[in-house]
Order: sequence, then structure tokens, then C-alpha cells
Amino acid sequence: MIKLKYKINENNELVNYQNRGMELEKELNETNEYYKIHDIALISKRPTPIKVVKCQNKKITEAYFEESSSTDYNGVYKGKYIDFEAKETNSKTSFPLNNLQENQLFHIKNVVKNGGISFLIISFSLLEKYYLLMCRDLIEFLQNNERKSIPLSYIEKHGHEIKRGLIPPLDYLAVLEKIL
Amino acid sequence: MIKLKYKINENNELVNYQNRGMELEKELNETNEYYKIHDIALISKRPTPIKVVKCQNKKITEAYFEESSSTDYNGVYKGKYIDFEAKETNSKTSFPLNNLQENQLFHIKNVVKNGGISFLIISFSLLEKYYLLMCRDLIEFLQNNERKSIPLSYIEKHGHEIKRGLIPPLDYLAVLEKIL
Repeated sequence: MIKLKYKINENNELVNYQNRGMELEKELNETNEYYKIHDIALISKRPTPIKVVKCQNKKITEAYFEESSSTDYNGVYKGKYIDFEAKETNSKTSFPLNNLQENQLFHIKNVVKNGGISFLIISFSLLEKYYLLMCRDLIEFLQNNERKSIPLSYIEKHGHEIKRGLIPPLDYLAVLEKIL
Repeated sequence: MIKLKYKINENNELVNYQNRGMELEKELNETNEYYKIHDIALISKRPTPIKVVKCQNKKITEAYFEESSSTDYNGVYKGKYIDFEAKETNSKTSFPLNNLQENQLFHIKNVVKNGGISFLIISFSLLEKYYLLMCRDLIEFLQNNERKSIPLSYIEKHGHEIKRGLIPPLDYLAVLEKIL
């Protein structure tokens, strides 16, 4: 199922692109499928909202992708509401905040207000590192900083590394379990 | 916002169609908006999944509606995961089970297994009655019955009536709060 991929990077090094070849979304979908099969949690990706303009019988002939007003994933873990956004960045030093839309931030704040468990999963592709950052820490950062990106050092300090595995590829609930 | 509608029904009676004019989905969306504004809960309708086949620039030119593999609504209430399906029936005596697809039932069972709060909201349009039926009671009915519909009497006994109001139109969380 997992293909090993190697490539020469910008520093002329042979890099294992296994992780990057299998995109973050795919890794998360596989992880969520694993959680579902093993009755660990039921978490899924929300469909991208699409505005349908014209429809002939069952065929849609004109439609447009809409901006999502919420995060990508939600579901249930031990009765608790789980909600997160997954983002990949090529930066090696920080997570650019323009990755998050205004209405997604609004949604995140609403989830936190209602007692839901809200976090980001950030993949630093070039570093091959994954972090889970609780949204309370994201909100605190936003309240105290004018910066347009979160430095990696902040994420290393306040976030929690998710080590990549095989099955499931990205066991983020094991990391969450330690935080809760 | 709410239009009063009157019509002659099959028994030649003048019927207030206020409820039916404003469909169940609209009533629930309004209720969920009320919950959101008042920080009571964050619950929303999932977008209908659409399979995109062709796309020119930002315009989708061929796509098809897909069968939903889950329920219509989910979200968070006091940290708890909430998941429900809303159905309307014209029957005056029972809720036809072909209203629920096989994969929806599968999803419902998974939600229950993971400790989520799962229920149906059933609107008997012609009776102008709304019920909340916990899915544990739905599952029990399915386990003990070969019937193709749930009799209204079962729903009256095991379900919980949701009285229609103005703001919010269908305060199902007030009913749920009493059950939990």
C-alpha cells in the first residue's frame, strides 16, 4: 500500500519521500479508517462544500467550490467531540498563518467555547515532522502576537510531536490521549 | 421570517401549514443558528457529498450527487459529540424505515459504539408532531422487530416530543437535556 519514494532535494541529498508522496490527507484518512475499524474513534473528513448552479436530471453541469466555513475533520472519540484542521507547510522555520482562513478561526473559537477538543495537525514536509497543536495554544498565540506565522520553536514548545508510523500512519489520538 | 400558510387538507379541513411550509431542514438550520449565536452548541448540516468528474478552471462542468455515508447533522454540545438524522414523513401511523439507508444505520451504530449522542428527529408532517428518538431505542427496535416501519405508538412511548416554538423553532437540545 505504501510506496517508497526517493528524490534528490535542493541540497543534493537523497531524501526518502515516502511521507511526502503519501500526502497528509491520505495519511489522515488511513488513520481514521484504522480508528473506525478498531472502534477507537469515528472521525472523518467533511466533504468540500460545492455550490450547484445548474443540474440536468442527475448530472450537475455547473457548480463551484465554496470556501469551507469550518475545519476539515470532525468526529467522536470516547464520547467527546473532536475537531481539527490539517495543514502542510514547506517552511522549515514557521507555520504561516495565512494557511488558516478567517472563518476557520471563527469556527475553531466556537468549538473551544462549546467544550470541543480542537487542534491543528501541522506537517512540516521538508523536516518530515508532524505536530499536534491544541487550539487553545493557537488562540493564545494569536492574542499575544502580531506575527503572520507561528515560529517552529513555539510549536515545539507548546505542540506535541506525532511520530509517523506504519499502521496507522499518524496516530494522533495516542498523542491527544496524553494531553487530555 | 415565518410565513403563515393555510390549506384545505384531504378531510376538507382548513389546516395551518405554517410548519410544513417551513421545511424541517430550514427549522433545524434556524435552530442551530440560534444555538451558535447563544453559545449553546455548535451543530451543523454536513454538505451533500458531490463527485466531481470534470472541472474547467474554477468551474465544475460535470459532477454527481453521491449517497451520504453518514447522517445529516453533527456537532458539539457541552463537549459531547452530537449526531443526528432528520426525517419527515407523511404517514400518520408509523415511520417507514426505508427512510434510513443501510450506510446511515452503519454510521449510527458506529457513533453509539464510540459514545456519541445519536438520535433521529422525526417529523410527522400531517400530525404536526416532532419526536426525538434516541438511536439506542432505534437499534433495540431493529433487533427485536422484522417490521419495515416503526409504529407511532413505539415512538410515542420511547421517543420524546419536541414542541414547536418560534425562536428557536425546534429546541431539540432542551428535550435532549432532560434525557441525558
